[in-house]
Amino acid sequence: MKIGLLGLGTVGTGVFEIIQKRKEYLQKLYGQSLDIVKILVKDKSKKRQIEGVQDLLTTDPYDILKDPEIDLIIELIGGDQEAYEYMKYALQNGKHVVTANKAVVALHMKEFLALARKNKKAFLFEASVGGGIPLLKPLRQCSLLNDFYEIKGILNGTSNFILTKMAEEDLDFHEALKQAQHLGYAEIDPTDDIKGADVARKLAILASLAFHKDITLENIIYRGIRHIDKKDIYYLKDQGYSVKYFGKAITDREKVSAVVEPVLFQKISQFERVKDSFNMVSVKGDHLEELRFYGEGAGKNASANAVVCDVIDILIESYQRDFVVLEEQKPSTNGQLIEGKYFIRVNLKESSHSCHIFNLAYQNGISIKEICKLSSQRRILITEKTNVERMQSFIQNLKNLQTSFFAARIEEE
Amino acid sequence: MKIGLLGLGTVGTGVFEIIQKRKEYLQKLYGQSLDIVKILVKDKSKKRQIEGVQDLLTTDPYDILKDPEIDLIIELIGGDQEAYEYMKYALQNGKHVVTANKAVVALHMKEFLALARKNKKAFLFEASVGGGIPLLKPLRQCSLLNDFYEIKGILNGTSNFILTKMAEEDLDFHEALKQAQHLGYAEIDPTDDIKGADVARKLAILASLAFHKDITLENIIYRGIRHIDKKDIYYLKDQGYSVKYFGKAITDREKVSAVVEPVLFQKISQFERVKDSFNMVSVKGDHLEELRFYGEGAGKNASANAVVCDVIDILIESYQRDFVVLEEQKPSTNGQLIEGKYFIRVNLKESSHSCHIFNLAYQNGISIKEICKLSSQRRILITEKTNVERMQSFIQNLKNLQTSFFAARIEEE
Repeated sequence: MKIGLLGLGTVGTGVFEIIQKRKEYLQKLYGQSLDIVKILVKDKSKKRQIEGVQDLLTTDPYDILKDPEIDLIIELIGGDQEAYEYMKYALQNGKHVVTANKAVVALHMKEFLALARKNKKAFLFEASVGGGIPLLKPLRQCSLLNDFYEIKGILNGTSNFILTKMAEEDLDFHEALKQAQHLGYAEIDPTDDIKGADVARKLAILASLAFHKDITLENIIYRGIRHIDKKDIYYLKDQGYSVKYFGKAITDREKVSAVVEPVLFQKISQFERVKDSFNMVSVKGDHLEELRFYGEGAGKNASANAVVCDVIDILIESYQRDFVVLEEQKPSTNGQLIEGKYFIRVNLKESSHSCHIFNLAYQNGISIKEICKLSSQRRILITEKTNVERMQSFIQNLKNLQTSFFAARIEEE
Repeated sequence: MKIGLLGLGTVGTGVFEIIQKRKEYLQKLYGQSLDIVKILVKDKSKKRQIEGVQDLLTTDPYDILKDPEIDLIIELIGGDQEAYEYMKYALQNGKHVVTANKAVVALHMKEFLALARKNKKAFLFEASVGGGIPLLKPLRQCSLLNDFYEIKGILNGTSNFILTKMAEEDLDFHEALKQAQHLGYAEIDPTDDIKGADVARKLAILASLAFHKDITLENIIYRGIRHIDKKDIYYLKDQGYSVKYFGKAITDREKVSAVVEPVLFQKISQFERVKDSFNMVSVKGDHLEELRFYGEGAGKNASANAVVCDVIDILIESYQRDFVVLEEQKPSTNGQLIEGKYFIRVNLKESSHSCHIFNLAYQNGISIKEICKLSSQRRILITEKTNVERMQSFIQNLKNLQTSFFAARIEEE
């Protein structure tokens, strides 16, 4: 099996290394060889960490995509438009595609699955969610026999690393972010990690596979975590809570609610014990009460491992037809199915705004259960049980009254 | 695809129901139908909970095994000798085999895998470990790319239910066992659950797949939990520990240590949060730092779900060659690789025996770090770090000095 690799960054290098290391073993086991024959890079002259790649490098994607010898494309260039075009071209021209690109999968899964089906090729993307955790394959297989109605989890290593550091080492958000960048967890531009797009994309992929519905990034409500401060963490810790950045999707078979927001876990939760760059995903269904999957959510070896697992599935033809079919209609989505009490910390523009908050909550159908005055401007509110739809509207309206603000749902287990 | 079902107990009934329920859906998806055409039972006249089975029942296994129309056997009669013979006969005569029978798999995995390979048929046993958790399939796939060196977990629902009840409801071991039996968790004869054979079998299966070694029941060291009493639980809770019945296997590639014994977890561990009949398995390797799988470890729907997943893999031919090959040589095994401090509670025959314990420990290479006198006869000891090999020998020698005794390794995380 001849492979064209698009991208030789961290994960691409890991994929190359694992395939080299396991080549003989896999050849012996399956009687077939895995050969990376061409690699797309931006700059051929750049110094590489690995040997034996120099002769394989090309800067022209179509040098790979049009090569009739190549059976399979591994797409690891990231980004959106180009990756989309290359993968589409590959599938349309009879090549299997394996990708770690959550951005493209979260927007175009349905199109690519249909294209793969039509061309009798594989389109696999295990590495796009949960790093090295074998997650999507068991999930889609179990989804054939289960009506899953909830999927949720800690899905972003960078934000989880930041929250872990803030809690354990008493750091500010920006200090913790700097550490994450220094250690290579966070991108130079961490916007997607801390504003929620990364988790939202992963949640779209998970919910699509679990519910068999065409759920894309536009269907996900998401709020960032960058307004949390050291004092919030401290206060919540004292109350027995840990903050996690969390994605959760629920369906009643008609509608879907999918939201990414900070949530609070009590110490007794397994999710509370998920530290640093680890991920944990839970799925609930009718036959299988609950499954949880835990492992490294990012990193060179973990992601590369997931990519090569997909490649092996194609090699031994165990990918075939092992797939869910998404419903034709896009589901209707809103935030009503996800409920809970909220913790809200708000720094008011003026201390006299305090009573406005009660009115505002009331207008949005939210009851405030407790209020605590931390300083003349700083308040903590605990709401009665409400839903994400109402909360979103409340948060929107609160904008005029506050200078800084953090809200997290209390996730009951 | 025509299926012969051996056994119509709890799991068998669940398998029948799931296949009926999903028949049309699977037919539409894969263009093939799953039909259970014959069912082996002990007593045809027994009243059944499900309809539509009466005409399929037979009391003669060879009525099924010799039927040339039948493609696949699902073995759910349990037990040892007969199940072994039927499965062997089925594979030798060109039928696929799916089983939940951990007793047979833990003893004869290597033989059955070779037989299946030779006859180009599938031999799958997802339901034998971890109930409904998709565990064995991801494990054996990841084992192709990883050198796993440790696998461990909570693998028995009955004992975990008993320990949960003892801790949460202040029950005696026998009261908790009675509750487990009343609720259908525990068998009428719970020996295998509480003396460790059940966990040992599952650990043998997991370690074989993870390490690619022929590890069978005889290679597992196991100690039961029935000597734990209410006061132990109480004392340990006060010290911040929970007791779990735990299987753990480690390899240094040459040797293997595999042991089933009570262990202590601190409150911060995810394993501590595994309650009732849930299971959790952790595996550590070179590329994937750690993976954890969590879900219902037993029960009609969970186990039936795992069985039908295997059947679908065969239906869509995604089982083929997706398998590990076990090393030819059996590995050498002892308890030396598994280390830790031990908590020991002992009721001495005579209070003067206290100093004998120090000598005995010393003779077995174990240092006692702390000793606490709870009553004239009852002592608690904490050892320095030692290994299972030494501990086994110490426990053996302690027999003459004690009337009752409980030892648990402190599992550090």
